[in-house]
Amino acid sequence: MKSYMNELGIKKYSFGQMIPTDTILETTFSEVKSTYDGIIRRENNETLIELPLEKNDIVYGLGQNVHGINKRGHIYEAFCSDDPNHTPDKKSLYGAHNFFIIAGESSTGWYIDFAGKITYDIGFTYREKLVITLSGSDFDLYEITGTPSEIVNQFRKLIGLSYVPPKWAFGYQQCRWSYETDERVREIAKGFEENDIPIDAIYLDIDYMERYKDFTVDEERFPNFETFVKELKSEDIKLVPIIDAGVKIEDGYDVYEDGVKNDFFVRDEAGQPFVAAVWPGKVHFPDVLNAPTRQWFGAYYHRFLEMGIEGFWNDMNEPAIFYSEKGLNEGIAFVKSQEGKNLDIGTFFALKDSIMNLSNAEKDYKSMYHKMNIDGEETVVNHYDVHNLYGYNITRAAAEGFESYDANRRFFLLTRASHIGMAKHSGIWTGDNHSWWEHIKLNIQMMPSLSMAGFLYAGADTGGFGHHSSGELLSRWMQFSLFTPLLRNHSAMGTRQQEPWQFDSEVTNHIRNLIRMRYALVPYLYSEYMKANLNQSLLFAPLGFTYLDERSKGVEDQLLFGDELMLAPIYESNARGRHVYLPEEMVKINLSQYESIGEQGFEWLSKGDHYIPQEVDELYAYLRPNRLLVLTEPKNRVSQLNYKQLTVIGFVKDTATYTLYDDDGITQSFKEGVSTQTVFTVTKSDQGFDINVDTNVHPIGDVTFYLIDESGKTHVIKQSGSKMV
Amino acid sequence: MKSYMNELGIKKYSFGQMIPTDTILETTFSEVKSTYDGIIRRENNETLIELPLEKNDIVYGLGQNVHGINKRGHIYEAFCSDDPNHTPDKKSLYGAHNFFIIAGESSTGWYIDFAGKITYDIGFTYREKLVITLSGSDFDLYEITGTPSEIVNQFRKLIGLSYVPPKWAFGYQQCRWSYETDERVREIAKGFEENDIPIDAIYLDIDYMERYKDFTVDEERFPNFETFVKELKSEDIKLVPIIDAGVKIEDGYDVYEDGVKNDFFVRDEAGQPFVAAVWPGKVHFPDVLNAPTRQWFGAYYHRFLEMGIEGFWNDMNEPAIFYSEKGLNEGIAFVKSQEGKNLDIGTFFALKDSIMNLSNAEKDYKSMYHKMNIDGEETVVNHYDVHNLYGYNITRAAAEGFESYDANRRFFLLTRASHIGMAKHSGIWTGDNHSWWEHIKLNIQMMPSLSMAGFLYAGADTGGFGHHSSGELLSRWMQFSLFTPLLRNHSAMGTRQQEPWQFDSEVTNHIRNLIRMRYALVPYLYSEYMKANLNQSLLFAPLGFTYLDERSKGVEDQLLFGDELMLAPIYESNARGRHVYLPEEMVKINLSQYESIGEQGFEWLSKGDHYIPQEVDELYAYLRPNRLLVLTEPKNRVSQLNYKQLTVIGFVKDTATYTLYDDDGITQSFKEGVSTQTVFTVTKSDQGFDINVDTNVHPIGDVTFYLIDESGKTHVIKQSGSKMV
Repeated sequence: MKSYMNELGIKKYSFGQMIPTDTILETTFSEVKSTYDGIIRRENNETLIELPLEKNDIVYGLGQNVHGINKRGHIYEAFCSDDPNHTPDKKSLYGAHNFFIIAGESSTGWYIDFAGKITYDIGFTYREKLVITLSGSDFDLYEITGTPSEIVNQFRKLIGLSYVPPKWAFGYQQCRWSYETDERVREIAKGFEENDIPIDAIYLDIDYMERYKDFTVDEERFPNFETFVKELKSEDIKLVPIIDAGVKIEDGYDVYEDGVKNDFFVRDEAGQPFVAAVWPGKVHFPDVLNAPTRQWFGAYYHRFLEMGIEGFWNDMNEPAIFYSEKGLNEGIAFVKSQEGKNLDIGTFFALKDSIMNLSNAEKDYKSMYHKMNIDGEETVVNHYDVHNLYGYNITRAAAEGFESYDANRRFFLLTRASHIGMAKHSGIWTGDNHSWWEHIKLNIQMMPSLSMAGFLYAGADTGGFGHHSSGELLSRWMQFSLFTPLLRNHSAMGTRQQEPWQFDSEVTNHIRNLIRMRYALVPYLYSEYMKANLNQSLLFAPLGFTYLDERSKGVEDQLLFGDELMLAPIYESNARGRHVYLPEEMVKINLSQYESIGEQGFEWLSKGDHYIPQEVDELYAYLRPNRLLVLTEPKNRVSQLNYKQLTVIGFVKDTATYTLYDDDGITQSFKEGVSTQTVFTVTKSDQGFDINVDTNVHPIGDVTFYLIDESGKTHVIKQSGSKMV
Repeated sequence: MKSYMNELGIKKYSFGQMIPTDTILETTFSEVKSTYDGIIRRENNETLIELPLEKNDIVYGLGQNVHGINKRGHIYEAFCSDDPNHTPDKKSLYGAHNFFIIAGESSTGWYIDFAGKITYDIGFTYREKLVITLSGSDFDLYEITGTPSEIVNQFRKLIGLSYVPPKWAFGYQQCRWSYETDERVREIAKGFEENDIPIDAIYLDIDYMERYKDFTVDEERFPNFETFVKELKSEDIKLVPIIDAGVKIEDGYDVYEDGVKNDFFVRDEAGQPFVAAVWPGKVHFPDVLNAPTRQWFGAYYHRFLEMGIEGFWNDMNEPAIFYSEKGLNEGIAFVKSQEGKNLDIGTFFALKDSIMNLSNAEKDYKSMYHKMNIDGEETVVNHYDVHNLYGYNITRAAAEGFESYDANRRFFLLTRASHIGMAKHSGIWTGDNHSWWEHIKLNIQMMPSLSMAGFLYAGADTGGFGHHSSGELLSRWMQFSLFTPLLRNHSAMGTRQQEPWQFDSEVTNHIRNLIRMRYALVPYLYSEYMKANLNQSLLFAPLGFTYLDERSKGVEDQLLFGDELMLAPIYESNARGRHVYLPEEMVKINLSQYESIGEQGFEWLSKGDHYIPQEVDELYAYLRPNRLLVLTEPKNRVSQLNYKQLTVIGFVKDTATYTLYDDDGITQSFKEGVSTQTVFTVTKSDQGFDINVDTNVHPIGDVTFYLIDESGKTHVIKQSGSKMV
């Protein structure tokens, strides 16, 4: 083991020679004389790390995974998994995010830089221990001390800036497995128009492809795809096609033939391209763990970019395997061997398992091989040892493809499987959830962990992917997703249609109001998103990061959103309200309908516990003291939003300031600091409030200020744009 | 259709000629001139009933099923199902309980007397409608009006007295799949002794049998079973063996041979005994829908009764089918037919389904036939049409067997599958749940629905059956199960051991305290159980049954327990407290440890919302105004409990009275009113409190009264037994 330290005081312990994950930015770490003084044991081919847990320590992090904000009391795995049943006994979802914080009297953050499977037993087997098991011996361990916020800040500096999508990606997005024809997509677009509901993107799930072949379009279903893309673009709606990991084995299919010719596919033991089966039937997987394959695969995206497509979602990239050729043959042979026999019950279960366990089999992952360039040498690596890098790198291939197409432009990109190293390349959705109330809560609890791991652009399949949704479920879920950067409604084949107008007119009206409120919030959301990114802070934070009282630390169903708001979403069916804990006095804002802001009034609430009635068509958020919330007039597209009719809601005890960040929303120039900051300042004086808006960029128009003072009184002040230069 | 009315004003509508379920007591219904004025439609072979739902109507009932106390917003089925994954997308569990109440401005209760599958779409597809679909046309519909409590009361009068177990069944019970040998059972018993933890029963899961054959004992594992039963009995521990529904096909096995000889088994289309496979391998199912088969099967229980066994649990009686001979052959043939083919992905899923869907297949249920005596005629009935009666009647066979053995004695009986008609014959456990926090909540929410349906003796597999438990989970679950009549810890093969001492010493201590508190509560629990039974009221009630404010109606995670207590259990991991809504002022009682009652004090709490800290080793309950809670000194067996050291906790504003019911706990003589009522009365006076204990039966000993007045002050008054006659 070697020890290092960087200029931020982050300690790094290198055990053996890890397979590079390209997660950590090039940072200067100097070797120091020190040893890792925790407990590390080697057993068989595994490494065990033990960390002590104090009675009231909270464990934050692990990014995308099941259970609460506090991860304590369960066992988790970092092993990218295509498992659509996110039940409480699952240990792993689609991402492998090995960053966590043990927060207590003092707090320490840990990042384990490792490409293989890791298991975390967080106070489950032993209440006072966190036991980590790595499926290997070579890894880097980073130790960061400070407050939880400081730890996140330092860690995010290590991994670098997160992915920034084009600004339209903060609009509403509609998805379904599948809108199978151009006609169906037109109907959906028309549905939004007729119902006067804002939208910025419609997704194409796997059925747009010709026999599920990547980078093809089914010409019967989408006869003039390029024209169709332009048609929707003329309505300012983006089409977002899916790209899967597996490349169909089919003679004459260029991606397949080119990949075989150039040896770009993952290999089996015999050195032949590994044969798996997914949606297209039999496929090979691009060996994206090396740069030439990424370059090759990424360039195919240019085809769609040329047609005017501006974004993609990458799916099935854990990689998901329905079966391997070898596995299926073995399974069938076993079943066949039992024909006509009088099975004992154990053999029957073995027979069942032989078929049920064909998908995503560890055996298959262990039969796949990659070529990687490690320290300048081409090295053959077993897939199992680098499993968690696969989805990351196939999405990186897309990102690198975009860069080679137009380095200055932002493209939209989502992926299902991920690793922390990928946070700089793409956003994620939280995978194939269900229309279960429990999954609204899981969504709420996952957002801060994702923020910690650098996945700022994220959101769930709102309304639920699997199972059937109801109008009530969709309404309540939307009330939370309203605040998530990715706001996408998605549902699976065979489930109830869940576009906003599929329930009843009350639901349609409420969801229209919510999506309009989302668009009103886009300036604030975008501003907070970019600030969280540029300042390496959290977009969604557990209350315990900001408030140090014991009560706040235990809150599992409220979040801080940006620096101004606290959210207390409803995630239970038939609820007509909920308890809300206020760690300090706040003002309850009615966000049910943009048009009624101001009319509905604002309610000052004391620090402490409250029961807040909230019917299914009502949405509240909570504004912190001396904070301002800026809203704009909603439009039906993000591009139409402007700053001519602003509303500023302030809870002003003495002075409140808000800096509204903005940029062109299209290019990468924000990286060079090309952006605008409009500073709103409201100061309470004896006479009332002094207001100042410091902007020399935006053509700020009329601003209505709703200023609530400590007595709960609302002061309405209108200012016309001319006053502010 | 014909209409009837009984003396209670209950309306009955008879559609066609239903297959009798033997649910409703012989009650005089007179035919009246009236028609059912709701919406009924016939479509294909189904009957649809539509009931309107007002916006804020609550739907209570459906007994054992998923989701909340308010069933609105989901789809349910009444179809006894062996499905161990109780996820939110499930529609049915093990029971079929067709009683529900629509509660609103006015309330109506409905019981659908029908033996086949029923689907309930309760405001899911249409928010304002309850749509019921019956898989047939012949049924009776009962309509009951009144308050929800009155409706339950009338319905329960219709179905008659619920099952009453021997009193020892209110003690703690330990189960595991499996304690496989007598030696292992001894170890478990010793574990309780060494840890000084009360216990009354240990269960034997399937492995005690010889090759899973009902009414046999494996002589290698339990070499002298009868002696062993007596050995445990000498320690006052009851052994509770399992009996499964399927009878193993094995030459020389008397139950099998006798059943075949007498045509006592369920038949297939060809009139041959139907062949299914479950734990023993291939089996036949006793055709318990006719009395001679029940009498035959029930008599086998006498074998164990003769050996000193006093109770049983009946399992796998939906009936669960792992596969049928025919189904398996078809599945294997299909898989085999795909050998060597290049499967498209649809065919692959069909192949997977052909094996995965072998268990509990509708096709199999539709291939099974029963003989029933209907109106004096032997009638052949397809199993699918009477599916929900199977578990009920095989358990009824046991109950009838007990009666023929000793009609005056109570025997212990639990079943997994059930129908409301069975509530008079047996208790139920809530099936194969998981060690999921969500299932504690499901347990809480299910108890009142079970009470409504007459299943007073009920409880969950505390700690969770499937998946692995943690000390924290078991502790929190025990804090609720403490109050359920069935208090059984049960876990599955392959999961972490979860006997009380399997975690750490703090958990062991806490669980010891909880179980001791349970024994202290047995007099109260038994008294409330019997009163709920004899008075046809609820043992567990939703707050909305007692309190008429809107807030109370919406509470989904607090219950009234008996007439005195309100429970607000914790069901979330890492919780250190919770919000509690008090519909009226109450006194918080610390039930964490019997020895500390009084020392810990009591806290008066105002009506309204409170946040109550409650660490993992703390348990609170809430005492209503002018109510008394009686506890006794805990012992390690129910039989050792006495009334020599009583504690009475009272929240006395003016006068509080409690009538403590008791009886011999062993015989059926309570049905003739043989019981004792001890009446405690406390009246507040200017000088303090006047206390009266009216008993001429129990040898009441020292009683310590902790009396809390409106100011929150606790008055401790000790009375010696001599004063009370």
